[in-house]
Amino acid sequence: MQDVLDFLNANRDQAVEQLAQLLRIPSVSADSAFLPHMTAAAEFVHNALCEAGLDAEIIPTAGHSIVYGEWTKAEGEPTALIYGHYDVQPPDPLDLWTTPAFEPDVRDGCIWARGATDDKGQLWTHVLSVAAWLKAHGSLPVNVKFVIEGEEEVGSNNLDHFLESNKEKLKCDVAVVSDTSQYAPGMPAITYGLRGILACEVTLTGPNRDLHSGVFGGSVINPVNALCGLIGKLHDESGRIQVPGFYDDVKPLTDGERAEFASLPHDEAAYLADLGMSSVWGEHGFTTLERRWARPTCDVNGIFGGYTGEGPKTIVPSKATAKITCRLVPDQDPHALTEALRKFFEQNLPPGISMKFTTAHGGKPSIADLESPYMAAAKSAIEKGFGTAPVMIREGGSIPVVASFDQILGVDTLLLGWGQNSDNLHSPNEHFSIEDFHKGALASACLWSELAAG
Amino acid sequence: MQDVLDFLNANRDQAVEQLAQLLRIPSVSADSAFLPHMTAAAEFVHNALCEAGLDAEIIPTAGHSIVYGEWTKAEGEPTALIYGHYDVQPPDPLDLWTTPAFEPDVRDGCIWARGATDDKGQLWTHVLSVAAWLKAHGSLPVNVKFVIEGEEEVGSNNLDHFLESNKEKLKCDVAVVSDTSQYAPGMPAITYGLRGILACEVTLTGPNRDLHSGVFGGSVINPVNALCGLIGKLHDESGRIQVPGFYDDVKPLTDGERAEFASLPHDEAAYLADLGMSSVWGEHGFTTLERRWARPTCDVNGIFGGYTGEGPKTIVPSKATAKITCRLVPDQDPHALTEALRKFFEQNLPPGISMKFTTAHGGKPSIADLESPYMAAAKSAIEKGFGTAPVMIREGGSIPVVASFDQILGVDTLLLGWGQNSDNLHSPNEHFSIEDFHKGALASACLWSELAAG
Repeated sequence: MQDVLDFLNANRDQAVEQLAQLLRIPSVSADSAFLPHMTAAAEFVHNALCEAGLDAEIIPTAGHSIVYGEWTKAEGEPTALIYGHYDVQPPDPLDLWTTPAFEPDVRDGCIWARGATDDKGQLWTHVLSVAAWLKAHGSLPVNVKFVIEGEEEVGSNNLDHFLESNKEKLKCDVAVVSDTSQYAPGMPAITYGLRGILACEVTLTGPNRDLHSGVFGGSVINPVNALCGLIGKLHDESGRIQVPGFYDDVKPLTDGERAEFASLPHDEAAYLADLGMSSVWGEHGFTTLERRWARPTCDVNGIFGGYTGEGPKTIVPSKATAKITCRLVPDQDPHALTEALRKFFEQNLPPGISMKFTTAHGGKPSIADLESPYMAAAKSAIEKGFGTAPVMIREGGSIPVVASFDQILGVDTLLLGWGQNSDNLHSPNEHFSIEDFHKGALASACLWSELAAG
Repeated sequence: MQDVLDFLNANRDQAVEQLAQLLRIPSVSADSAFLPHMTAAAEFVHNALCEAGLDAEIIPTAGHSIVYGEWTKAEGEPTALIYGHYDVQPPDPLDLWTTPAFEPDVRDGCIWARGATDDKGQLWTHVLSVAAWLKAHGSLPVNVKFVIEGEEEVGSNNLDHFLESNKEKLKCDVAVVSDTSQYAPGMPAITYGLRGILACEVTLTGPNRDLHSGVFGGSVINPVNALCGLIGKLHDESGRIQVPGFYDDVKPLTDGERAEFASLPHDEAAYLADLGMSSVWGEHGFTTLERRWARPTCDVNGIFGGYTGEGPKTIVPSKATAKITCRLVPDQDPHALTEALRKFFEQNLPPGISMKFTTAHGGKPSIADLESPYMAAAKSAIEKGFGTAPVMIREGGSIPVVASFDQILGVDTLLLGWGQNSDNLHSPNEHFSIEDFHKGALASACLWSELAAG
């Protein structure tokens, strides 16, 4: 495959120029004023896939179109589904950009533009590698299917329907997504675990109206006090969540994972300084990275009840509400734990109060199989492309598309991060290192042969 | 003194007519559009005191004037300071009145108008009794000083300054106020105890901004969870407040008081039905009346923090605030307990969080000496005027003027209730029983001779 790598090395500048052309299209999905540019971006991507040698099409959805492209002539070989998105965040505030958001500028070893890293630049590494294989070699060692949507920055509302409706067409062995980051410069990362989520809202009602706290206080339950009592019971002194059964399905971190996390550079003092805090807090017995990536949480996101204006008001409030989310880790189940939480509140409810418990969205945690041949292929490909083995990390949030690929297509996702957290994703002066862009393309090119070899 | 009672009985209709004249003046202190009527009401009261035979004057304040009148020729006899107010609540909503708020109507044995009971009608019983003594008898058995303000319904902002500036002029042995209610029809009451109050606001700050709950959740303290934890610790399972020293100065109810309270009609089922609740709640070992009147409380009046809009938002909030008031009973000190509460929060604060604790107004609880000659005189006078001994009750709220009389003038206040809780104070269709109005005047007339006899 040296011919493929040679091709990429030889065409490095052209690759940057092609990316710059895409970055010049202001494909802001959130604002309907940009609609013609969304169409132009989809067409640009479609043309690039065709020129690379793929069968490609633009597929309309209820929102912005999905660009689909495939090359499936590697009979008997695995199929990789490559996901990315051609839409970008709005560029505001415009006056904070050094050079205009949609006039890509190359300086300091980076390309600067909205979408440079999220996700046009990272996505393009895979387009380039596939094109290089087909130009330099005439074929790919595996089958590839590209799904490139235009609504990632506005909630991917039409993606699941597309996946559901095209299960056969999208049949694959593994999904590949480069929309995350390296752990730090020079430390490309595979994000192999994500936390899930459950969300609920609890409203307690005491008296049927706000009462004079002098006349009635002491003789009736106060729903704010009661709600605080419930929430206060959620954690013990050591930060452990007290809902019965909450930890039953938590897959413990392996010694290997803990050692890997511990080996990562993490400056706790800088972390605290950024947050303006004097100390971290969390479940005893775990490090900050472990708490963020691999342990469940139960956070009140918002609370309100009674009088919230200026100064005092002497009432016993009628109602109090808390919005709560729990971040979940493999193999916790959002539905079962929502029910456990509801029961916990119900069983700890003081007399004289009524509870309304409503649930919002939930999402399963996910973890990719660290021992799978796909994971081994990705590690090896990155080591070849970047000259260093990737670090294996998790992330504390959710990436809905990973859950969709798991639940709808039944495949693991390889989250391969080429960008940096400091690339100003979603902020002014977004940029992407040209070196990382190029190494990402090399790693991607290697991935196809590694997957075939696996 | 039969001549005085005869006079009151003979002039019963004229008394109602004089009250109706005062009720026709829409003396709404809250609304500056009513200013001319405030002046008219002060003048009406001033004229009535002069006609009764008192030396009276209208004393300007920074707000509405105070009407002052005195008769101090009973050398060597006690001096009673009679407090009342000539201002009334706004009459809104107007369309709910059967007859207009400022066109007094006599029907069903009551006089209907804004201020009928609160406080023009109740106040007038004392004006009538003093006038009757002076007309029928030529003198009073005690000295009397009237302080009739025009700002009770808007916070009595200028009263304390007036009391402070006129300590010598207002020197007295006991204060008399009829601005409370009977316990029930046919059960005139002396309110001998009031709860005090302390008010504070607690704001906890965790991270310096709202954080993504996926990225950061579990590694930093959540100030809403932490605030709930603190508030949850305020009470134990039996409803006892856990702030160290909180109950140290609580004067226990005597067996006599508990027996008196227990003898009062109290329909717990009706109480709960009115509040829409299935059960009462409070400190174990006490009845509802005891909890409302004679036990301290710690209620959150309002709480807010994080996201309070619709739907979920996955953040770890930066801040959370609770507004808290404690109702206090004799001899708890608001300042000392505010400090105890602050310490309690401080000592239970989890690491990594900062607290801002601000205090608002405080007020001491009060209790009148049940064994004083003034109390004995009031009981006896009510028994003579109403034909039944008064019940001895407390109230759960505060009446600031009682604290002012105690702290500035150094006297107990006799809170003598002639009205009914069902008189629609502050609501449409306020009214006052003409029978209670008359009996109140008789009891007041008796009070002056009983005070002299004591």
